[in-house]
Amino acid sequence: MQHGQEHIDHEMIKIEVNLDDIPGEWLGHVMDLLLDAGANDVFYVPIYMKKNRPGTMLQVLCQDNQKFEMMDIIFRETTTLGVRYYPLSVKRLGRQFKEVQTPWGSVSVKQGILQGEVVQQAPEYSDCKAISDKHGIPLKLVFQEVWKQLN
Amino acid sequence: MQHGQEHIDHEMIKIEVNLDDIPGEWLGHVMDLLLDAGANDVFYVPIYMKKNRPGTMLQVLCQDNQKFEMMDIIFRETTTLGVRYYPLSVKRLGRQFKEVQTPWGSVSVKQGILQGEVVQQAPEYSDCKAISDKHGIPLKLVFQEVWKQLN
Amino acid sequence: MQHGQEHIDHEMIKIEVNLDDIPGEWLGHVMDLLLDAGANDVFYVPIYMKKNRPGTMLQVLCQDNQKFEMMDIIFRETTTLGVRYYPLSVKRLGRQFKEVQTPWGSVSVKQGILQGEVVQQAPEYSDCKAISDKHGIPLKLVFQEVWKQLN
Amino acid sequence: MQHGQEHIDHEMIKIEVNLDDIPGEWLGHVMDLLLDAGANDVFYVPIYMKKNRPGTMLQVLCQDNQKFEMMDIIFRETTTLGVRYYPLSVKRLGRQFKEVQTPWGSVSVKQGILQGEVVQQAPEYSDCKAISDKHGIPLKLVFQEVWKQLN
Amino acid sequence: MQHGQEHIDHEMIKIEVNLDDIPGEWLGHVMDLLLDAGANDVFYVPIYMKKNRPGTMLQVLCQDNQKFEMMDIIFRETTTLGVRYYPLSVKRLGRQFKEVQTPWGSVSVKQGILQGEVVQQAPEYSDCKAISDKHGIPLKLVFQEVWKQLN
Amino acid sequence: MQHGQEHIDHEMIKIEVNLDDIPGEWLGHVMDLLLDAGANDVFYVPIYMKKNRPGTMLQVLCQDNQKFEMMDIIFRETTTLGVRYYPLSVKRLGRQFKEVQTPWGSVSVKQGILQGEVVQQAPEYSDCKAISDKHGIPLKLVFQEVWKQLN
Repeated sequence: MQHGQEHIDHEMIKIEVNLDDIPGEWLGHVMDLLLDAGANDVFYVPIYMKKNRPGTMLQVLCQDNQKFEMMDIIFRETTTLGVRYYPLSVKRLGRQFKEVQTPWGSVSVKQGILQGEVVQQAPEYSDCKAISDKHGIPLKLVFQEVWKQLN
Repeated sequence: MQHGQEHIDHEMIKIEVNLDDIPGEWLGHVMDLLLDAGANDVFYVPIYMKKNRPGTMLQVLCQDNQKFEMMDIIFRETTTLGVRYYPLSVKRLGRQFKEVQTPWGSVSVKQGILQGEVVQQAPEYSDCKAISDKHGIPLKLVFQEVWKQLN
Repeated sequence: MQHGQEHIDHEMIKIEVNLDDIPGEWLGHVMDLLLDAGANDVFYVPIYMKKNRPGTMLQVLCQDNQKFEMMDIIFRETTTLGVRYYPLSVKRLGRQFKEVQTPWGSVSVKQGILQGEVVQQAPEYSDCKAISDKHGIPLKLVFQEVWKQLN
Repeated sequence: MQHGQEHIDHEMIKIEVNLDDIPGEWLGHVMDLLLDAGANDVFYVPIYMKKNRPGTMLQVLCQDNQKFEMMDIIFRETTTLGVRYYPLSVKRLGRQFKEVQTPWGSVSVKQGILQGEVVQQAPEYSDCKAISDKHGIPLKLVFQEVWKQLN
Repeated sequence: MQHGQEHIDHEMIKIEVNLDDIPGEWLGHVMDLLLDAGANDVFYVPIYMKKNRPGTMLQVLCQDNQKFEMMDIIFRETTTLGVRYYPLSVKRLGRQFKEVQTPWGSVSVKQGILQGEVVQQAPEYSDCKAISDKHGIPLKLVFQEVWKQLN
Repeated sequence: MQHGQEHIDHEMIKIEVNLDDIPGEWLGHVMDLLLDAGANDVFYVPIYMKKNRPGTMLQVLCQDNQKFEMMDIIFRETTTLGVRYYPLSVKRLGRQFKEVQTPWGSVSVKQGILQGEVVQQAPEYSDCKAISDKHGIPLKLVFQEVWKQLN
């Protein structure tokens, strides 16, 4: 599978929209729709716009072949009349997963590999949160327990 | 007129400058000058710069053939020694205008059209504000009245 | 019920914590826990801290008699060694609810009353979102439909 | 006149409102109304609210005896159902004005006095901007000319 | 020593200043001066001010008996003519230190104690950074090594 | 030397990373490492990420031939599994330096030249700060003294 290996992806797009005429509560909903449609990432940047307007810049990262689908969602769900975009390259580490046992269950750890060396070890948030919620343990203790098991 | 139709414009430029040695009050003035010179949009992003400096990133959107005029304004009015830029594509909805009658006067509504369908209806801010100022009515009531008339 | 009437509440507290040594993903979890425990509001402010650290200020609004419970959650789930707080007064509008019929179902609208006059009309987000999700209608159209019914 | 002397004012109030259901373009208008009504300062803080909503915290500084007038504007012009406030003390420098001659006209400079010593010298923005607009001189050159005249 | 025990400190002050006429590079310097003078914390909040000015709110936390010294620094080093302040309470955990051995040297860990229970364990940043700088090891590995030793 | 002349550099790169699982205190360290390795600029943008996470976007500006070295630092020192980048053009003013004498020593002033005209004059921060620290003079007075000498 191609994403298991360290590689550079030249087919990424960043989409940007400046919004000054939309309530913030709609934007949480837009983020969900864009992620459900397969965006790699969606985030908001606070910006200062003309006429003393606090605004929000919506940014979406997606594959080039998804860009018009993303723009359709943005046009239908937000208040903008124009959407800008430009191409990006993305360098990605190789990825592999490791299971770590804790007293409360196992947690998956995503490892990132650079030139054959493991340089990242990220416990899966959703696994840690599930343990935290189920056992009433502070989330930070679950992470700390996972880090202790890693070497 | 070309901008009345849905289209993609590949001649746009984004200009960016990081500023950490300029008073904020000058930047309101710079925004006015850039908009007066024909920029499509001008906005500020709060950033954190080296040596614990709160800074501001100025961003300007303009046509490619305006970029050196915009940079001249930036060099003359701000404190920067360098300005970066890169090309953007912009997808724009088709646009048409509709007049809506309210008890206090008419308001123009900008409509955005995607594949033949009206997906945006934006009451003109300046019309609504003029009514609000003239009649002492909260701005939100003017917008709500316009939305009520739209279907 | 006391909160149905316009009133001033002098028993509110704001809690604040500056955080520069915690991953952002833990903070989404903390927000959930504080809201579940009954906080009136929880939000984050981006701040610039010493040694070039991007930080986050956590703010919690709660009743005075909830403050130690909130602080316990903060101490157990974040990385701070100290939490500051101060008293606030809150002026609240009188509140009442109105049901609005849309073609897709009813939506509750929260009304705010100032000196006997309805000055706010806020469609319930969760009702509008439920309709949007169920019928695949853009959220903004649901809100616009509700506004059209209101007078 | 009392504000000419260095003093501490214990009659100030800060008003705060979190907004996640209002378009940014309305907020520029609200700022104008609050300043016109006599607020000492009005500003916006970008905040992150629940349900992934980018929000805005409105803050108003005013005298204690103006607070209900300010809240009325906020309730009528924004979408909030509650407004919080708390008292502040403000230490203010003594103030005096000095006229500075530039080749393009005079500029007023506000001086701040701490324990008998001039510690601040602030050229009036509106004077400098008027010269800049009239003579087509970069604003920064006008400020620099004024600073050169000051000793 | 009083700060070793869990306690509430009612003698704290928050000082705030809005700045729109100062270059960001001066503010890094001001932060250093305030911390050197004994402030508990100093940080910056990005704000949107009138006339489209990106601004910065300086916040200082200090003991009540330090407040005029802090204000003097602010008046002499920034451009403001007024500084506001208000009292805070701070709840602080009990504190104790523990030494942890790593292959590269020892690291001090600050522990926070709530009702007799250790709820925080924070490796000292300066110790970890010194190891990282001396041995050329990524800082995150130093922290991870310390966490592994903790139980 | 090529950078003494006004020119456009088409070999610049912007690198971007979104971070939601890293403590802010590590990021101050990363900024130092990237600047030491020769980055033109490094800065942070506060962003709002999914699942209510306050995040930070790291941005690095560097020459195209430095980009993999910068990415290696980012992969080894932060928690990301992917880094995006795109090319930029940068227009730079011509540069020359001028020495200005103050009563406390000389200060270097960087001048920026646009089409043969001096449009920028920036006193060197480090020179001004050294004077401020050595003589105990407010930094703003040092800058004001330098500006007075410039014409």
